[in-house]
Amino acid sequence: MIGKNTIKLIKSLLDKKNRIEENLFVVEGDKIVSEVLSSGFKIERLFVTNTFLEKHSFNLSKASAVIEVLQDEIKKASLLKTPQNCIAICQLPAPIKFPSEMTEPLTLFLDDVQDPGNMGTIIRICDWFGIKQVYCSPGCADLFNPKVIQASMGSFCRVDVITSTFDKVETIAHASGVKICGAFLDGENIYTSDLNKKTLLIMGNEGNGINGQIAGRIDRRVSIPQFAVNNKGAESLNVAVATAVICAEFKRQFNYSK
Amino acid sequence: MIGKNTIKLIKSLLDKKNRIEENLFVVEGDKIVSEVLSSGFKIERLFVTNTFLEKHSFNLSKASAVIEVLQDEIKKASLLKTPQNCIAICQLPAPIKFPSEMTEPLTLFLDDVQDPGNMGTIIRICDWFGIKQVYCSPGCADLFNPKVIQASMGSFCRVDVITSTFDKVETIAHASGVKICGAFLDGENIYTSDLNKKTLLIMGNEGNGINGQIAGRIDRRVSIPQFAVNNKGAESLNVAVATAVICAEFKRQFNYSK
Repeated sequence: MIGKNTIKLIKSLLDKKNRIEENLFVVEGDKIVSEVLSSGFKIERLFVTNTFLEKHSFNLSKASAVIEVLQDEIKKASLLKTPQNCIAICQLPAPIKFPSEMTEPLTLFLDDVQDPGNMGTIIRICDWFGIKQVYCSPGCADLFNPKVIQASMGSFCRVDVITSTFDKVETIAHASGVKICGAFLDGENIYTSDLNKKTLLIMGNEGNGINGQIAGRIDRRVSIPQFAVNNKGAESLNVAVATAVICAEFKRQFNYSK
Repeated sequence: MIGKNTIKLIKSLLDKKNRIEENLFVVEGDKIVSEVLSSGFKIERLFVTNTFLEKHSFNLSKASAVIEVLQDEIKKASLLKTPQNCIAICQLPAPIKFPSEMTEPLTLFLDDVQDPGNMGTIIRICDWFGIKQVYCSPGCADLFNPKVIQASMGSFCRVDVITSTFDKVETIAHASGVKICGAFLDGENIYTSDLNKKTLLIMGNEGNGINGQIAGRIDRRVSIPQFAVNNKGAESLNVAVATAVICAEFKRQFNYSK
């Protein structure tokens, strides 16, 4: 059974303040819970239905407590529109130690990406494209917001998401000889530019792009060309979509261009 | 003022059945309403706040009726979590005449893309990449679902979205000498394949990919390579993100590869 106070607790974890106070966050759904089970994250309580237990042979021993409940109880406790077969209450991890250098070919800095769906999708994109570190400005959606967790589809278990001001990230980028590159609507065409350099890529806010203070400290401005005839097309792309297209071109040039 | 029955009407237009019965759909927000005002769509009633009128000098004469209302009234009537400064009640357009051939370099077929956010984002992607026609299986989210309209950011005004079975689309693709290409997790690497051919690209459902019946009738299977080390990354990409990365590579090869 999921008690009334546990349901209250789960609902309260929608708010960052409560997540920090309780040191907990929520993960739902077979796929993402399975990723958490095979990661270093600690599950305090895992509520599962019979269907879940029949369908999966995950190693549940990593969860401190596994409680079988009815589908209806999951429904009452769930933060999702379409509740699934399991809800995990997990411990917030210790903060990641701030890296002293930037060694990867491509690293991301998100400047106030506020939509949780976009944040989660970008983390999933990084996971696919082998981008290991994503720095987020303090204005970004919180990694442990349930919508970020769900949209990341479990990728938050593999990608290091580090909240930091741009100043600190800029310092290690400079010290590591990494070029700072920002995505704009009026930059160099990514398809005719040489991207084959160690890069910190900055993606900006949904409505306002990269903020002016950061924009002035960027080495290169890049753009995805608009292919619509006479430029009579969409004014912009969604930030997660743009991140994917730009990261894909970096990776293509790193791996497949002669 | 927005009357009680109008508020009821607006809320009812969340459902496709009601949209068809009333022959109406809803558009909200400055940016998208401005796109509708400069398109062929007909606005029956446009509710705007004073802020909207002060901020914009759109040609409002295209709306049959412009009604100034208070922000609070917009809030009550809005279908959005964050209501904006305007709500337009628009007429559903006449269905697009089914094309007799496929003339564009790249055309899309969406096989049961069910999430409205993904549908809208894909329409916006098509608009950016100059893809003029998107065929949708009957199982796709409805174009006039308010969430599709909002996610498309106005691009639905410029991209032809045509609901059709795969059979009919396959017939015109074959008759037009267009290759049918599907996105899979185990296809040819898009970065080492020659994509410089007239193509109908099929993108599948969020959970299940392209359905088996269609998959058997495809000329080419393509994939976005996973760049994560030892393939220990995300299992897949969101369908809108994958659509963008694949369309971008088609367009790159059409325009920038020698």
